Amino acid sequence: MEESFVPFRGIKNDIGGRLKCYKQDWTSGLRAGFRILAPTTYIFFASAIPVISFGEQLERETDGILTAVQTLASTALCGIIHSIIGGQPLLILGVAEPTVIMYTFMFNFAKNRPDLGSKLFLAWTAWVCVWTAILLFLLAILGACSIINRFTRLAGELFGLLIAMLFMQEAIKGLVDEFRVPERENPKLLEFQPSWRFANGMFALVLSFGLLFTALRSRKARSWRYGSGSLRGFIADYGVPLMVLAWTAVSYIPTGSIPKGIPRRLFSPNPWSPGAYENWTVMKDMLNVPVLYIIGAFIPATMIAVLYYFDHSVASQLAQQKEFNLRKPPSFHYDLLLLGFLTILCGLIGIPPANGVIPQSPMHTKSLATLKHQLLRNRIVETARKCMHNNASLGQVYDSMQEAYQQMQSPLVYQEPSARGLNELKASTVQMASSMGNIDAPVDETVFDIEKEIDDLLPIEVKEQRLSNLLQALMVGGCVAAMPFIKRIPTSVLWGYFAFMAIESLPGNQFWERILLLFTAPSRRYKVLEEYHATFVETVPFKTIAVFTIFQTAYLLVCFGITWIPLAGVLFPLMIMLLVPVRQYILPKFFKGAHLQDLDAAEYEESPAVPFSLVTEGELIRTSSFADDGEILDGMMTRSKGEFRRMCSVKQTSTTATPSKEFNGTEIESPRFSEPGYSPRVNGAERRSPRNVTRGPFSPRTNEARLSNLGKSG
Amino acid sequence: MEESFVPFRGIKNDIGGRLKCYKQDWTSGLRAGFRILAPTTYIFFASAIPVISFGEQLERETDGILTAVQTLASTALCGIIHSIIGGQPLLILGVAEPTVIMYTFMFNFAKNRPDLGSKLFLAWTAWVCVWTAILLFLLAILGACSIINRFTRLAGELFGLLIAMLFMQEAIKGLVDEFRVPERENPKLLEFQPSWRFANGMFALVLSFGLLFTALRSRKARSWRYGSGSLRGFIADYGVPLMVLAWTAVSYIPTGSIPKGIPRRLFSPNPWSPGAYENWTVMKDMLNVPVLYIIGAFIPATMIAVLYYFDHSVASQLAQQKEFNLRKPPSFHYDLLLLGFLTILCGLIGIPPANGVIPQSPMHTKSLATLKHQLLRNRIVETARKCMHNNASLGQVYDSMQEAYQQMQSPLVYQEPSARGLNELKASTVQMASSMGNIDAPVDETVFDIEKEIDDLLPIEVKEQRLSNLLQALMVGGCVAAMPFIKRIPTSVLWGYFAFMAIESLPGNQFWERILLLFTAPSRRYKVLEEYHATFVETVPFKTIAVFTIFQTAYLLVCFGITWIPLAGVLFPLMIMLLVPVRQYILPKFFKGAHLQDLDAAEYEESPAVPFSLVTEGELIRTSSFADDGEILDGMMTRSKGEFRRMCSVKQTSTTATPSKEFNGTEIESPRFSEPGYSPRVNGAERRSPRNVTRGPFSPRTNEARLSNLGKSG
Repeated sequence: MEESFVPFRGIKNDIGGRLKCYKQDWTSGLRAGFRILAPTTYIFFASAIPVISFGEQLERETDGILTAVQTLASTALCGIIHSIIGGQPLLILGVAEPTVIMYTFMFNFAKNRPDLGSKLFLAWTAWVCVWTAILLFLLAILGACSIINRFTRLAGELFGLLIAMLFMQEAIKGLVDEFRVPERENPKLLEFQPSWRFANGMFALVLSFGLLFTALRSRKARSWRYGSGSLRGFIADYGVPLMVLAWTAVSYIPTGSIPKGIPRRLFSPNPWSPGAYENWTVMKDMLNVPVLYIIGAFIPATMIAVLYYFDHSVASQLAQQKEFNLRKPPSFHYDLLLLGFLTILCGLIGIPPANGVIPQSPMHTKSLATLKHQLLRNRIVETARKCMHNNASLGQVYDSMQEAYQQMQSPLVYQEPSARGLNELKASTVQMASSMGNIDAPVDETVFDIEKEIDDLLPIEVKEQRLSNLLQALMVGGCVAAMPFIKRIPTSVLWGYFAFMAIESLPGNQFWERILLLFTAPSRRYKVLEEYHATFVETVPFKTIAVFTIFQTAYLLVCFGITWIPLAGVLFPLMIMLLVPVRQYILPKFFKGAHLQDLDAAEYEESPAVPFSLVTEGELIRTSSFADDGEILDGMMTRSKGEFRRMCSVKQTSTTATPSKEFNGTEIESPRFSEPGYSPRVNGAERRSPRNVTRGPFSPRTNEARLSNLGKSG
Repeated sequence: MEESFVPFRGIKNDIGGRLKCYKQDWTSGLRAGFRILAPTTYIFFASAIPVISFGEQLERETDGILTAVQTLASTALCGIIHSIIGGQPLLILGVAEPTVIMYTFMFNFAKNRPDLGSKLFLAWTAWVCVWTAILLFLLAILGACSIINRFTRLAGELFGLLIAMLFMQEAIKGLVDEFRVPERENPKLLEFQPSWRFANGMFALVLSFGLLFTALRSRKARSWRYGSGSLRGFIADYGVPLMVLAWTAVSYIPTGSIPKGIPRRLFSPNPWSPGAYENWTVMKDMLNVPVLYIIGAFIPATMIAVLYYFDHSVASQLAQQKEFNLRKPPSFHYDLLLLGFLTILCGLIGIPPANGVIPQSPMHTKSLATLKHQLLRNRIVETARKCMHNNASLGQVYDSMQEAYQQMQSPLVYQEPSARGLNELKASTVQMASSMGNIDAPVDETVFDIEKEIDDLLPIEVKEQRLSNLLQALMVGGCVAAMPFIKRIPTSVLWGYFAFMAIESLPGNQFWERILLLFTAPSRRYKVLEEYHATFVETVPFKTIAVFTIFQTAYLLVCFGITWIPLAGVLFPLMIMLLVPVRQYILPKFFKGAHLQDLDAAEYEESPAVPFSLVTEGELIRTSSFADDGEILDGMMTRSKGEFRRMCSVKQTSTTATPSKEFNGTEIESPRFSEPGYSPRVNGAERRSPRNVTRGPFSPRTNEARLSNLGKSG
């Protein structure tokens, strides 16, 4: 994305780009059929549970003026609108913690003013929302989102980890509170006697750790060894919601003399309770707000605008990481403009506004990648089977699979014509086929075991569509009506879920992996390489990695500390935005350019010294494939952004070679090997098997690597 | 072991064999230095905790006549004597559940007889012990243990799994009881009010699952990625006792209004409490027992004798499995004789007798294998480093390592002269060294990374000595004095520990692995092969495996059901002994001989049709090496007994080839390839990489396998 500050240009580009694929956004979603429900349910829970919990928090802080009903309503409303007319449908909107903090502050300010009071509080916040929206309009129109590519991994991952810490903090706080008497409750009640409080706390520990543990396990079900494939798939897709249900059921097991309040459950008024809907008519009070306060509303509005600008853009950015190989264009400017309208809308009906949320947005993309993988997998396996049934040769089978793959691609392709295809066949398969005699002889499943090969063949792709976002928003809306059922969930299950979300957001965060690397025994560092394909481990000295990571960790802890300061806390995004100039102007003084580029690739820094070669591309093809059926989430998010960025450009020029050429086997090395800048250091075989790096170039893998270069002569 | 029923011959052989290595049993233990403490502590906890718990159970059942003090005293006394003058020092003695059940039954019988009563109970049990001992003497003298080799894997593993089920049952029962009022306690006490009872139960869940989870994790510490090697080693060695301490500490965290009885802790009198030592003088009452009861004591004595004969021998057998490559002779007959003396001794001082226990005995051997591995590792790495420092060639380095290895071997070797040596170097290393130019050129650590290679080079061996057994028995004795401290352990931690022991005993139990295989998705069955090297998965049709396993499972469930029958329960060993004739005479009618041999190898069945080849030996060498630093326990116990038995005989004749011959590389295939019975099915390369089996013989591995055959020309 170019940096352009010409007014409206960014918005125009965004709308143009997204309009081209708008129809396909819907048809593609509908074509996925009932399978779309897996990512939908997954994101619905990830979206609704924190929103309900924030609603409870708001209720305590605003004396019941705002409740979970309002936060759910806002999340649903904004989600529905965004999924229909928003730019990037991968982005998930929701009422987030910073919003809650801001509203708490504003309520504390308003309730002590005699000419404002809690009666005019919502009317005043409506004015704040108006100002915020105006500021967001300005930012969107002037192209402020152009600088989003200055937000490197450094800032984005630090923010991601900070959110994870805040979620984990929420979980721990919640658990500790289970041992205490809740503030607004009557401490004389039976369930608040010391014995029952202690019992409640212990029960909460059981429920929350039970949920956390089983939810984490169920997400990995696809790689389990037991049970049929469809059962494992079902558990992986729906395990987390099922576990919420299961542990809620467990919470009902103790009966008899146990008081009704144990374990504690969600507290929220039903939407039809008196007073729960007063906010909808707040607009008529807006003119009753004294002019001075209308003007003064500009001050909190600037803070919220900065916050939303950052939050919304980074959430969108993290949902569109290069690793996902998205095909449809981003829409930062237009989405910020729309957010402005949504903010006004929410303000006028007296509900707190929603904005793009982390970690739900990247979680959404991840789950859609899993979906797309399964859809591709089923179709291509079927094609291959049919083909083999007709006594086709390996080349023919592969060609027909390519064709099926191309048919599955969106007819509309953004930017460049489709250069993508299936990954190449494994050398061992080709070798085996050729050893069976003529390469054109029919193959069967003993030679070409499609079930095992398929995961290596498929590149990572995402089912980009609007349906899952719309459905999850509708389901969040449905929660408002389902409040009596939702109130049956024990709060402790909720704390376990918060911890689950925090932990789920860690894999793939390279900052987190570098922190772990600091604690890894030197003799086992090579294992990190084997798993994460993290280039920097090889190319950057460990000391440099350590210094960089320690700096980042210190910065993170400062940000985390700031969130504890009563009011300034809400400004922690400013601290993170400060990282952009720090990265651009200060860090290069302390770190070598090449190292910095490996640790934190920035598009504005060109580094021509970094070598690339066709073998790197071979590496890409292998790493971008799926390690095992469905272990996509783990595998996908664990690649360095820089690595991908560099490789993608190579890929587009060379994988157009048709695979049938692969079998002539005459060209062992591609001409690209002789390109200037080629360095044996990045030899694919060595990368994959870092143990061999220390041993020299004669590893058993070399043969395989050379074989896999056959045919890359395009 | 030949089957000989000539009186005294077995005992004489046993004593002769063990006397030859008696001195070495001690010197070898002392030479291990402080490292011997790791297996000692591990087994001490595994031995003491169940004994304490059984003591508590006895106390409830015998109205406090027998307590944990007596069970600990018996375990310590028998353990000390056995470790000093016993035959097989790997065998761990302890008071076991069946003994507790027998004593309970005898007490219930005695207390209702006016001429016996609880006063003469211990005197009467002394007579039972005398009769039991006489029967054991007869069994030992007449060579009853000769038939131990008729106890195949089928019976031994079923027994092991049954014990695991009983332990798990104990854990679950214990946890459930934490929610209830203990029988003998005053239900009016504060801590038995419903609220505190519920709180106690929940706390117990937290503590026991906490212990179970962390203990299981800590045993795997050696393969962790984080922390230094020594820290990881320390955690793996002492993690379980540390976790018992840690969770006991956690149990003290809740203070304030929590009553003292929460969580519940071990209940046991101090040995210096009045009444806790009345039993020691029971001998003087023995003649007060009416003659009729003295004669009647023969009836329970026969049951106990059968039980001990079986338990003791099978525990000893499981501690000496072929996988462990033990060098010192077994001692079944003599140990049974000694058990007779120990039983009399215990009877006369009024404590319940101890016998060989499962799973502690095999756990003991496993932990000593880990110890031996570390000792060998350190020494050989040091030698190799020194050698490389002197610019030696790879051949020279390997020779010096061989020499160091031989020096580490016990000077006294049982049966045949030492044919054992280090495993061969990996083909890739040899290839790399030769590619560096002359094979005699000096190597450095880039070519020969000793830290990474060493685990492949070392065969499995056990530090066979008496010290660890003696020390653990002394520590159990120390528990009697340390009762005030032991009583601080919460009972819930104990239940967690029971579950831990049950789970720890599962890996390596092929019966258990076959049960899991039944639930494994067909497409993932090959993964079982990759991990466990279980031949039968390849050679026996799945349907046959399933039928065999279902039969065994049904039999197991019947045995488990029998343990629930009040009195007959104690006779479940008879059911398991019944398996011996079932295996020998009935099963061959339903299963093919070759299949049966693969599923459950029996020495008395010769199966000349089973092919073996040198490649099988190559397989052995690879499988008998350590997969990774210290992951020995997992790797070692997971090989089929039959496989090993067959291979060992080959090994002794062919691995005497000196490794320096390896490098001439002229003989690609050994003459043994042309032997009759050679079948490509057991080709090592295919075995290792079962995915290739379906693809035909042209896998990338084949090359490596062929290379690894170089030099096996002995």
